[in-house]
Amino acid sequence: MVKRYLELRSLDEALRLLTSSFDLPLRTEKVPVMQSAGRVVAEPVYAKYSVPEVNLSAMDGIAVRSRDTLGAGDRNPVTLDHFARVNTGNIVPPEFDAVIMIEDVWENGDRFQVRRAAAPWQHVRPAGEDIKENRLVLPRGHIIRPFDIGALATYGITTVEVRAVRVGIIPTGSELVPLGVRPGPGQVVESNTIMAQVFLDQMGAHCTRLPIVQDEPDLIRAALRHAVKENDLVIISAGSSAGTRDFTESVIRSLGELIFHGVAVRPGKPVMLGKVEGTPVLGLPGYPLAAQTALREFAAPLLESWGFPPAPRFPVMARLAQPLVSDPGFDEFIPVFVGRIGSNLFATPHIKKAGVQMATVKANGYTRIPAPVEGYEAGTELEVLLTTDPGSIERMLILTGSLDPSLEELAGLAHDEGLFIHATNPGNTGAILALRCNTCHAAPLSLPARSLLTTFQPYIKFLEAGDLAFIHIATTEMGIVSEEGLGIKDLSHVRFINTRRESPARMVLDALLATEGIDPSQVNGYLQEVHGPPAVAAAVRNGFADAGMCTSSIASAAGLRFVPVAHEDYELAVRREMLEDSRIRTLVTLIQSPAYRQILTRMGGYDVSLTGTIRGLNGENILTPLSPGSLPAGYI
Amino acid sequence: MVKRYLELRSLDEALRLLTSSFDLPLRTEKVPVMQSAGRVVAEPVYAKYSVPEVNLSAMDGIAVRSRDTLGAGDRNPVTLDHFARVNTGNIVPPEFDAVIMIEDVWENGDRFQVRRAAAPWQHVRPAGEDIKENRLVLPRGHIIRPFDIGALATYGITTVEVRAVRVGIIPTGSELVPLGVRPGPGQVVESNTIMAQVFLDQMGAHCTRLPIVQDEPDLIRAALRHAVKENDLVIISAGSSAGTRDFTESVIRSLGELIFHGVAVRPGKPVMLGKVEGTPVLGLPGYPLAAQTALREFAAPLLESWGFPPAPRFPVMARLAQPLVSDPGFDEFIPVFVGRIGSNLFATPHIKKAGVQMATVKANGYTRIPAPVEGYEAGTELEVLLTTDPGSIERMLILTGSLDPSLEELAGLAHDEGLFIHATNPGNTGAILALRCNTCHAAPLSLPARSLLTTFQPYIKFLEAGDLAFIHIATTEMGIVSEEGLGIKDLSHVRFINTRRESPARMVLDALLATEGIDPSQVNGYLQEVHGPPAVAAAVRNGFADAGMCTSSIASAAGLRFVPVAHEDYELAVRREMLEDSRIRTLVTLIQSPAYRQILTRMGGYDVSLTGTIRGLNGENILTPLSPGSLPAGYI
Repeated sequence: MVKRYLELRSLDEALRLLTSSFDLPLRTEKVPVMQSAGRVVAEPVYAKYSVPEVNLSAMDGIAVRSRDTLGAGDRNPVTLDHFARVNTGNIVPPEFDAVIMIEDVWENGDRFQVRRAAAPWQHVRPAGEDIKENRLVLPRGHIIRPFDIGALATYGITTVEVRAVRVGIIPTGSELVPLGVRPGPGQVVESNTIMAQVFLDQMGAHCTRLPIVQDEPDLIRAALRHAVKENDLVIISAGSSAGTRDFTESVIRSLGELIFHGVAVRPGKPVMLGKVEGTPVLGLPGYPLAAQTALREFAAPLLESWGFPPAPRFPVMARLAQPLVSDPGFDEFIPVFVGRIGSNLFATPHIKKAGVQMATVKANGYTRIPAPVEGYEAGTELEVLLTTDPGSIERMLILTGSLDPSLEELAGLAHDEGLFIHATNPGNTGAILALRCNTCHAAPLSLPARSLLTTFQPYIKFLEAGDLAFIHIATTEMGIVSEEGLGIKDLSHVRFINTRRESPARMVLDALLATEGIDPSQVNGYLQEVHGPPAVAAAVRNGFADAGMCTSSIASAAGLRFVPVAHEDYELAVRREMLEDSRIRTLVTLIQSPAYRQILTRMGGYDVSLTGTIRGLNGENILTPLSPGSLPAGYI
Repeated sequence: MVKRYLELRSLDEALRLLTSSFDLPLRTEKVPVMQSAGRVVAEPVYAKYSVPEVNLSAMDGIAVRSRDTLGAGDRNPVTLDHFARVNTGNIVPPEFDAVIMIEDVWENGDRFQVRRAAAPWQHVRPAGEDIKENRLVLPRGHIIRPFDIGALATYGITTVEVRAVRVGIIPTGSELVPLGVRPGPGQVVESNTIMAQVFLDQMGAHCTRLPIVQDEPDLIRAALRHAVKENDLVIISAGSSAGTRDFTESVIRSLGELIFHGVAVRPGKPVMLGKVEGTPVLGLPGYPLAAQTALREFAAPLLESWGFPPAPRFPVMARLAQPLVSDPGFDEFIPVFVGRIGSNLFATPHIKKAGVQMATVKANGYTRIPAPVEGYEAGTELEVLLTTDPGSIERMLILTGSLDPSLEELAGLAHDEGLFIHATNPGNTGAILALRCNTCHAAPLSLPARSLLTTFQPYIKFLEAGDLAFIHIATTEMGIVSEEGLGIKDLSHVRFINTRRESPARMVLDALLATEGIDPSQVNGYLQEVHGPPAVAAAVRNGFADAGMCTSSIASAAGLRFVPVAHEDYELAVRREMLEDSRIRTLVTLIQSPAYRQILTRMGGYDVSLTGTIRGLNGENILTPLSPGSLPAGYI
């Protein structure tokens, strides 16, 4: 019963079919000039009249006939009978062809004397200097910019005929609910069609989102038959996979022609193209990131081939912060986060799960891995297309290490300063690697309390990073989380959920078990590892385990009971020279602010008595003349 | 009576004052999520619920408790009593923590047998995989992109609190008329305020354009007093110069504080900044290009400093196609046209007249010449900020030489093919220089008919351009233009208007006068030169001269009579290798098309019998296997 794609097209071949299988829609509409920014001129625009319409003076002075001044000189002043007094912008009467500045004339009774000949047309803005009546202002195909609109208004143009395209978007799926309705279990908001509408509207399309259609072939068929009559492009979302409830392909076949189904692209493989009554029908995959690929790589190029303006592209070259594996044979699009460390741009790829929209939200760009490539080593330089203003990269801080709710609050304060935090959670080991490879600005670490020296001495050689500085965020309590308030002695007779070996929670646990003389093999679930303290709390809350180790703030956020057993220091480690970086200085200033202490105190479970102190690798205090870092110009 | 600026600020100092003299407005507004693209988040956005809200199956198969499968293997199949049949996207009931693919299970009556242990959470999309309830989706300051809106909709977010700013725009000037009213002599449409509104609306501002205010201090004062109460920024256009009717400065002083008036920037020197009841008041200069500078270099940075997104910037490095002179002491902004010839980008500066809006319309970028610089040599590489999509440069053809109405019609056809023509009119000499320096794609030339060889042999050495090819556009009639139908013999007793020495009309005239035995000194106005045949026709039409030389099509366009005296060839000269360029091939195809011949025939005055033939420098026919050039991908 498993349906298969008959044939996967290459991305290039699919694009060729997409842009060559349909006639140009040639739809246009008349818009008021003030609403025409970003639109594409469909009929050439001509000036309604000349600008200026008559000759104007460009100076304060007198308008003269230049031939009357021939021969004038210091020793041969010429007195003019024919002239007109004019100010800047005044009309130069038709009988005059020059203006002499008021500073260069001498009053002589009712008349003026000049001592230099006027060149024809001097200080005159001749009629039609800017544009002449009926001359071309904007050619067909021109994309109208705001300053063009000033010119159009000046030239008497009130409306412009621009290219238009109608797109009908059909949401299909019995699991869909409209925006504003809270989805029940197994339901989702019809967000892919909302995204499609916003994305295509921004390109200048007029999108109509049709009512949600249940997964019934007859209903989908009726909606499509109607939509192709009214639109230049129809998008069906989704039902394009090869599952038993995916009817888009059969509906297209029943009404018209299937051009392709399945393209060697990730995410987005199930994308589909059909032709019904001459109208292109694009079938979007259901996973949000796959739908994004289909919109960006298929719908947008189709509109571009119809003469719509491309979205602005900001390509940059960046080095991969970590290796990247790709399926050979597939063009793969990966959301990445680009940040600058020193003079290098680094790209951190986001996890490849087509259902995780936060990957795109947190990313500021994406990269395309061509079909023949199997992957790249860390450090490989590749092209990234940014999805944000390139200047914003300078306001991005990359934090790599062990995440804690206190860091999220710090990020909140930083956002108010126009500083954006991109935090990833590879744990303490990832933090040390990132410090060593210089691929992060700062590395948050959770360490057994007051163990800085002993924890870090083994890494010093490995680091090769020169000196480090540690900015103390807070001391937190580590303990046992459970529904019932279990303690260390209870662990041998409940279901435990553990964290990874290098994690601080694990280090605390192992030390405690040793102290208490409990053999880890006695702990049921000791080998069952999850990724970090929040996952521990979730497992306990969901009933998969009875107890685990986490911090008090995480336990309290999960609504669970907590028995403290140890303390740990939450530190922000930076290369010492980074203390000079204005963004790090802003961050330190925020850590040291009373506002942040108040937030931590209110959250509970944080000891803030040392918050904001800075120490070196040997525990020595570092006193830097810290002032708030100044942010790049043009921001708050 | 000449008022002077007390003090010109440097651009940098003015910007510092602009961004440091005012409090942040802190205005926000709630917008529906679908209207939030491009807006800036004012309050952090959190997920309304976890996505997915419950564990979902990522495969078709059975949901199991992973611990029930422990020890399963090929030689130790385990039969499961507790399981649930699930399809992709189905809910995994809370008691199960893994999914086994249907391909990997064996039916055993009502039960299933497995031969491999399931890892906890395998093939499960855990609750909160995308995002967890109440977690941050978008931080404050984030600029919302279309794909973010998909995520927001998925997470149940229907509205977003975004930054807002209100801008009041006051048009002042007794010469202003509203858009839609045809300006009388000396009047202009209030296009600068329209441009300001469109420009600032695009940055996310809410602009209110107030009614036109006459040049009366009391009226302007009343409008300003009202506007500062309702807006975060007030723009007054114009009245900012130092003329006798310029009241903006005195009105600001009477209501508040003048921060600066006059900045060392061109165009835009009279720009002014005041503060009335805490609100910034920006005085725009009246010349359109000066107003553009004030909007782009002052209003936009102010909004950026308030956290509004900057306009996208596309910097490129380009070589100056001609020398550029600048006033030292002034930061100067020059509209330029950037085109690519081979591997070089060339920037052609546009004329520096602040009233000529077509300079900005025809430009695709601008460059800033810093205050200390007096100018640049041709060939200097400098930074240009493009005002169009960078990709559009590849669709631009630079034509430099002698312009003729027939070329404008050709450009019209080219626009329909997505090919844009940027034509400048430095005459035949400019054409030859551009060919020599390789700063144009093609050079239109007006030559005495059938004189190709004799005209060009002297230039061959000078050109150093290898072989040239000449694409024949048409043979035109050159003759005498007048109201009365004057002939060559009449020229000694009327007012004549001449063209420059190297122009074809001048060459024809000189040859004719010699043939007729007329001494040029007998021709009244022989020394009075204007720039090209269209200016001749204009001078005759406006009554400044009685006769001149131009082509029949120009005379007929001006509604004047025409007596033919000679023929000339209108040729498009290209370096021979340019015949391989796909854009030139498109252009040649258009010249050879029946449609273009029909247009020329309809215009009248063109002999099209040789249109489209291609000859070499020695007059030999060039037969190239021409096929329509293919345009860059992604265009029509």
